[in-house]
Amino acid sequence: MPRRIGQILLSGGLDSTTLACLARDETDELLALTLDYGQRHAIELDAARKVAAALGIAHRVVDVRFYRGLAAHSALTDATRFDLPAGRAPAEIATGIPVTYVPLRNTFFLTLAAASLESRVLQAIETEGRTADDIDPVLYIAANALDYSGYPDCRPEFYATVTETLRLGSKIGTQYGCAMRVATPLIDKSKADIVRLGVHLGAPLALSWSCYDAGPRPCGVCDSCLLRAKGFAEAGVEDPAL
Amino acid sequence: MPRRIGQILLSGGLDSTTLACLARDETDELLALTLDYGQRHAIELDAARKVAAALGIAHRVVDVRFYRGLAAHSALTDATRFDLPAGRAPAEIATGIPVTYVPLRNTFFLTLAAASLESRVLQAIETEGRTADDIDPVLYIAANALDYSGYPDCRPEFYATVTETLRLGSKIGTQYGCAMRVATPLIDKSKADIVRLGVHLGAPLALSWSCYDAGPRPCGVCDSCLLRAKGFAEAGVEDPAL
Repeated sequence: MPRRIGQILLSGGLDSTTLACLARDETDELLALTLDYGQRHAIELDAARKVAAALGIAHRVVDVRFYRGLAAHSALTDATRFDLPAGRAPAEIATGIPVTYVPLRNTFFLTLAAASLESRVLQAIETEGRTADDIDPVLYIAANALDYSGYPDCRPEFYATVTETLRLGSKIGTQYGCAMRVATPLIDKSKADIVRLGVHLGAPLALSWSCYDAGPRPCGVCDSCLLRAKGFAEAGVEDPAL
Repeated sequence: MPRRIGQILLSGGLDSTTLACLARDETDELLALTLDYGQRHAIELDAARKVAAALGIAHRVVDVRFYRGLAAHSALTDATRFDLPAGRAPAEIATGIPVTYVPLRNTFFLTLAAASLESRVLQAIETEGRTADDIDPVLYIAANALDYSGYPDCRPEFYATVTETLRLGSKIGTQYGCAMRVATPLIDKSKADIVRLGVHLGAPLALSWSCYDAGPRPCGVCDSCLLRAKGFAEAGVEDPAL
């Protein structure tokens, strides 16, 4: 079996916490990456740190707050110009691209995680002397197409083209023939399915944080809180973070 | 005619200096972006600033030195572990992926430039009230497939898939139907062709800097100096930067 070298984007939310548990179980080595891009609060970063520690995963937090200045047209990064939506029904949340869309955020996040993963794979091949045939690089992202159908970069067709971009744009894809796979195992799952999977795997859901607000308790009315509550309710599970 | 909103990645080298001149002439508004990713020296950044000023183009320099830490496996960003190649013949330069390859650098650069461009276009549509039909967003990059055939991310097939990724991953591409084009007009030109084009357009080639070394004069022996010298020689033009 080739050595599976994994990289995961970990926000510290419900979905990426569940996925981190899954990815840890199916990789030989896993690095979690959390990107601080100027969210409205730091409680998400703390959640990511606690989740990684609980799972025993190597973890890096990278400061990419410069991204706010480049891609400022969003409610998640520019609190002075936009209000966050609140109190909406799930059906309403799922229509249109919301004001919380950050220009090309997932493309940016994937590129950074992919660069880190490629660097680790090149290290294994060119410095440690492993053969490319013996390496299976996988990039995990907790994208979900159902609840956030409004986000263009949460859909399967986007991940297909990103995979091709990362193959054609990388040395491991073009010279060594060991392109990375982009794994999105949660993409077609409902929030209830994700809750059930997280519980089944023993993911530290109590440590995860989904609210768009700064805490110390989840607000209960933002899009993210509402979707989470609906997921736990439909799964018939009590949210251990509440 | 739709308003052409342009964005260019400007390194301050010969190619991007020529392209900046071309892009300025064919856009209604142009923003140049220079990314400081921990090159070995700052003279490139100074060259980019001077070129933008000479052309009267709005210009931003963004500090992305964190990228070194993420994608460290390269001679351009890690001087402690690699030596830069020197004194090689152009035919030798054009084979294989060189040690100066930085993991997914062009993908990273394009994503940042694209995020900035999308943000500007969203601003025009959602804040200034322009219609999407009236906007033609173009992302310029001075990629060249001939002299640097070793780099995977300098080839036309890479730009085709990047264009698709940026369409499917963006709000302007999926909701507004005004996806950005990625323009690579230099991709199949020889260095001599680029020199001739730069001279024809009146590009400030004297201000450009191509050497991998820190100056104050170009070293004359690195891959980049050798390709530049060959280009000027074949074009029958004296290099105004020497």
